[in-house]
Amino acid sequence: MSEWIKVAVDAMGGDNAPGEIVKGAVEAVRANENVSVTLVGLQEQIEAVLATCGEYPAERLSVRAASEVIETGEPPVDAIRRKRDSSMVVGLKMVRSGECDAFVTAGSSGAVLAGGQLLVKRIKGIERAALAPILPSAKGPVILIDCGANMDPRASQMVQFAQMGSVYYEHMCGVKDPQVAIVNVGTEEEKGNALVKEVYPLLKACDSINFTGNIEAREIPAGGAQVVVTDAFTGNAILKTYEGTASVLLHSIKDALMTDLRSKIGGLLIKPAVKGLMKKFDASEYGGAPLLGLTGLVVKTHGNSTAKEIQGGIEQCILFKEKRVSEHLAKSMGLETE
Amino acid sequence: MSEWIKVAVDAMGGDNAPGEIVKGAVEAVRANENVSVTLVGLQEQIEAVLATCGEYPAERLSVRAASEVIETGEPPVDAIRRKRDSSMVVGLKMVRSGECDAFVTAGSSGAVLAGGQLLVKRIKGIERAALAPILPSAKGPVILIDCGANMDPRASQMVQFAQMGSVYYEHMCGVKDPQVAIVNVGTEEEKGNALVKEVYPLLKACDSINFTGNIEAREIPAGGAQVVVTDAFTGNAILKTYEGTASVLLHSIKDALMTDLRSKIGGLLIKPAVKGLMKKFDASEYGGAPLLGLTGLVVKTHGNSTAKEIQGGIEQCILFKEKRVSEHLAKSMGLETE
Repeated sequence: MSEWIKVAVDAMGGDNAPGEIVKGAVEAVRANENVSVTLVGLQEQIEAVLATCGEYPAERLSVRAASEVIETGEPPVDAIRRKRDSSMVVGLKMVRSGECDAFVTAGSSGAVLAGGQLLVKRIKGIERAALAPILPSAKGPVILIDCGANMDPRASQMVQFAQMGSVYYEHMCGVKDPQVAIVNVGTEEEKGNALVKEVYPLLKACDSINFTGNIEAREIPAGGAQVVVTDAFTGNAILKTYEGTASVLLHSIKDALMTDLRSKIGGLLIKPAVKGLMKKFDASEYGGAPLLGLTGLVVKTHGNSTAKEIQGGIEQCILFKEKRVSEHLAKSMGLETE
Repeated sequence: MSEWIKVAVDAMGGDNAPGEIVKGAVEAVRANENVSVTLVGLQEQIEAVLATCGEYPAERLSVRAASEVIETGEPPVDAIRRKRDSSMVVGLKMVRSGECDAFVTAGSSGAVLAGGQLLVKRIKGIERAALAPILPSAKGPVILIDCGANMDPRASQMVQFAQMGSVYYEHMCGVKDPQVAIVNVGTEEEKGNALVKEVYPLLKACDSINFTGNIEAREIPAGGAQVVVTDAFTGNAILKTYEGTASVLLHSIKDALMTDLRSKIGGLLIKPAVKGLMKKFDASEYGGAPLLGLTGLVVKTHGNSTAKEIQGGIEQCILFKEKRVSEHLAKSMGLETE
């Protein structure tokens, strides 16, 4: 038995597939000796890209043919059920069967969520898997859980999200007892909608997390907590508002700097300083969004992922396995591992 | 009977009370001949500021003594019930009795919401009042309704929010049939949490609005719709994430520009261009957040409002009355005005 960590990668997912995906996988096996990657998708297309990649350790990079592709915008559950030979379904099943430890995809978010829940087993005792993207903040990475899977969660599920997020953050970001907070409309305990009012006392009573109370969404970009718990609907709204605001502001500043010569020269002068800043706010530094609660790791990277993000997603899977996050997770929650 | 539009102003509300509040009221009566303002609060303090303001049309600026102040952080409903001689309660009652047409406050959001609902009558047929702040976007102002009043609204209430927001936007921003969209996690009709799934078909069937479907939160800063409908919990999360992200990014850029001489010089050169940009993204240009659905207008301005924002809030009340927005609102929704 090899000691390699085995990662399946959806070669057909995202805007830049298969080119950037295949290149990212090649970079990952070059840079990490303990990983083997299986590229899943249309074999000819994948091999055509591989032929342009120069030398790489071929014993740790293989191709698994899958004849179908799930497109963004297809109804997710339907696509997962119908396209049984798609790169997404084949890759997820490799995790289910234990053939691979993890799966990385830049494909349709809806399909990853549906497929992850339908095809990969949950850790015994976990009620629902949760998507947990990492946001940049002024004080470092913040994990936002849930952000896609459960639109109308039960209170008990929210408590599990908090526990899973805390363990993930502790081991993946290296911070003991990270601050866990729940999104609310104010800092007072009695505030909120019906769900939050029900969840708050449960989190307060939960011994395995460092619960710091409510967090207003305004404090998330400032880094007011490290693990931010919310339902998937609100989480999605926060994540998308964050991305949209940053994007519109930065584009507007760029445009403003092109209006006249004075601004253009100023823009050139500030470029190095602003570039360093942008790196700090680049979420892709922290890898993709993990779908937590499954027996294997599923990572969703941005739809416009380049080779760099795919490599990051694969390295996230390596760290996850090396740090034995699944085991810590089950242990911290008093669950059995399988 | 005078033809003046009568606005009560909470002289004690907000971080800069009473100084900036009183100055804003003075500016408003100076600049607008058709308004009379009543400053509500601690008489001596208000008069001390007025004494420093130079000449103003005193026949249109009066003081109404109120001996108590509701502080930020007090439990709102309790504060409204207990402090019956507070500037907030006295001001709201002046709207209820018809003595004033509108009330402007920079005080506690919770207290305005509770007091607005408890003390001012709703338009007959309106189920709940809704707070509707105006956000800046790349394409102009966006109204986000509801953003504070109803954490777990019923579907029928959400439809009324859409109708109220549409009428307000049309008459206050001068755009016929503004685009109305509902916040969701994707653009497809079948997405969302239970509430949105229930509301979507009702909005689609609503003849009095120009419903354009779902909007992802990412598109709000880009100006993807003019009237954005959501529950107060999600609305609050969107508003606060928007403000927090913009604030953290702009502060980080400012800091980055102070790191070395090159960046400092660049920063000076780009200042005029960036200043123009900031004006575009300055929400206070559009006044405060109206609490819609009441028989008089209640406007909540930012807690850190300066004289300029208070003047803006008062002028918002003038426009609201001049454009007869309440009447249009009742008419568009098939309701009687009182």
